[in-house]
Amino acid sequence: MSRSLNLAVIPGDGIGDEVVTEGLKVLDAVLAGADVKVGTTTYDLGARRWHATGETLPDTVLDELRGHDAILLGAVGDPGVPSGVLERGLLLKLRFELDHYVNLRPSRLFPGVETPLANPGTIDFVVVREGTEGPYVGNGGALRVGTAQEIANEVSVNTAFGVERVVRDAFARAQARPRKKLTYVHKHNVLVHAGHLWRRTVERVGTEYPDVAVDYLHVDAATIFFVTGPSRFDVIVTDNLFGDILTDLAAAITGGIGLAASGNVNPDRTAPSMFEPVHGSAPDIAGQGIADPTATVLSVAMLLEHLGLTVEASRVVDAVSADLAERGPAKRRTADIGDALAARVAGA
Amino acid sequence: MSRSLNLAVIPGDGIGDEVVTEGLKVLDAVLAGADVKVGTTTYDLGARRWHATGETLPDTVLDELRGHDAILLGAVGDPGVPSGVLERGLLLKLRFELDHYVNLRPSRLFPGVETPLANPGTIDFVVVREGTEGPYVGNGGALRVGTAQEIANEVSVNTAFGVERVVRDAFARAQARPRKKLTYVHKHNVLVHAGHLWRRTVERVGTEYPDVAVDYLHVDAATIFFVTGPSRFDVIVTDNLFGDILTDLAAAITGGIGLAASGNVNPDRTAPSMFEPVHGSAPDIAGQGIADPTATVLSVAMLLEHLGLTVEASRVVDAVSADLAERGPAKRRTADIGDALAARVAGA
Ligand SMILES: CC(C)[C@H](C(=O)O)[C@@H](O)C(=O)O
Ligand SMILES: CC(C)[C@H](C(=O)O)[C@@H](O)C(=O)O
Repeated sequence: MSRSLNLAVIPGDGIGDEVVTEGLKVLDAVLAGADVKVGTTTYDLGARRWHATGETLPDTVLDELRGHDAILLGAVGDPGVPSGVLERGLLLKLRFELDHYVNLRPSRLFPGVETPLANPGTIDFVVVREGTEGPYVGNGGALRVGTAQEIANEVSVNTAFGVERVVRDAFARAQARPRKKLTYVHKHNVLVHAGHLWRRTVERVGTEYPDVAVDYLHVDAATIFFVTGPSRFDVIVTDNLFGDILTDLAAAITGGIGLAASGNVNPDRTAPSMFEPVHGSAPDIAGQGIADPTATVLSVAMLLEHLGLTVEASRVVDAVSADLAERGPAKRRTADIGDALAARVAGA
Repeated sequence: MSRSLNLAVIPGDGIGDEVVTEGLKVLDAVLAGADVKVGTTTYDLGARRWHATGETLPDTVLDELRGHDAILLGAVGDPGVPSGVLERGLLLKLRFELDHYVNLRPSRLFPGVETPLANPGTIDFVVVREGTEGPYVGNGGALRVGTAQEIANEVSVNTAFGVERVVRDAFARAQARPRKKLTYVHKHNVLVHAGHLWRRTVERVGTEYPDVAVDYLHVDAATIFFVTGPSRFDVIVTDNLFGDILTDLAAAITGGIGLAASGNVNPDRTAPSMFEPVHGSAPDIAGQGIADPTATVLSVAMLLEHLGLTVEASRVVDAVSADLAERGPAKRRTADIGDALAARVAGA
């Protein structure tokens, strides 16, 4: 009995195209052996479409996306689009509409990878970033814009429902890992309402996971440990904005955003999950064939994992790990890295 | 004609007492030569007072504090006080009531100081953190607390008035520094209302400072540069919460919060400014005489600078710099560090 995987692909802008091509190359290679047929539909969304039509995410496209098993996204945006248009109108709209309440961002310092830290130790943690609440909800507004009396507010909305489901997901992930450690990060000494909701939720859900060790860090203190002792982290759960900040820092200490993968996951599977590199569209290097596709390939591994193709997922990660260990200082081209990884997963 | 300096001192809790003692020791020593008399009034505020009386900051005390030239604060808090009580009721209340709209946090990697970065380069920047707006205003609230229907909101309030005054301050500081560079940090692609107010304000005020080079970073990207290339920063201006996060990270890369000084500054001088180390009360090491008082001594230097005693301020910074350069790996006691610094500023 063969399975078929029905994938929506959003290459997007800038280097998005280039890295997605390599991601799909590796996906095809790793599934060639397995009895899985891959069908892809490519969607033209992003800056190009916005410049041409003014559209960010038409409802009809959103509906079509819902019909897929998963989404692979490259990167969206270019300097000609006003800040916020594609972020709010496309990327965040996808995360919110498809209820990607778990924004999963693993950080691992692979052997052979350069880090800015003098003594990194072992780095292997995952950030479970809430994806559908917090300061990202877009519930702000402004009054008297452009005048000396302007007021601009941003509202962080946090619900028991929304916090509990992501906290539960994080506990389950922590329990499934050897170290069984969960660090929740907030700023409950200042953001007392949201922070205390998080705190009470972690404490309550934690009683159901007695084997998971829990600790708490204020977000400011967490950044300190990211550079002075990141080995302490196993699973981190935090809100949408803190998670955004911490995962860029996490990427920086593990070799940069060229290697950072992410999954916008709907654990209830009421809509497709979306996998994307953490980096942006990097217009400065687009079209030159020099972007590093590794983050996209690792995002493909997360996609496979999410779809239950765990053997194939590990094979991709192992291929990346082996490739990174052997990468010298010489810069390789985008396609060469994709080819090398495809060969490794095929030969494995 | 002799000046007199009328100082309010809030030692606070934990190591607060110990580090403030050394800070005052150095202050006395550096002013012994100058024709400045120091008078201090000590205020018992913090966890101890709260446990005894339930008070955080009585109005009468706040009024008395207003009558001083400046405030030196050690650290407040202990694990027995519920999170948020002293932060919101004392520390933030002081910053808001005394209109400390510039929270000034210099970061310098002094020679001889260990950093977690493999290749730090030269680090010498200052963060101008907004101190009276943003997510810190305490305008949140919660509904149906403790139920499955709980909603907890936090409101970030930003005004043209509030953003402009701190942006102006930052431009002036950038212009006065050799590199004349200002980086503003926000997340205007997501927090579009607040972010665009910041952006428009920086652009408008910037036209009055044509010699200052301006760039922008999203807060997540900023954390990357803090670890991969902090030399790029000169003056950073940002909101209250982003500033909180970035300055802990800044401390981490320049030797830790044992060295990080800060000033809660009211540039209009309508109320006294307050100087405090960035670290907390560290109850785990309190009373042992092993806390590093350097951050408090550097905060004293900022206090002197703010009061126009610039020669004395430099003398304190130079003493710290010289001391740090000669500190070996051996741990020194709190009082020994204070004595050594006092001797240096006296002998200078
Ligand atoms: C582009 C932006 C909206 C996005 C975010 O803030 O979530 C990005 O920084 C990320 O981390 O995926
Ligand atoms: C204690 C806390 C309220 C405070 C803040 O968040 O401002 C501290 O972290 C700081 O940076 O001074």
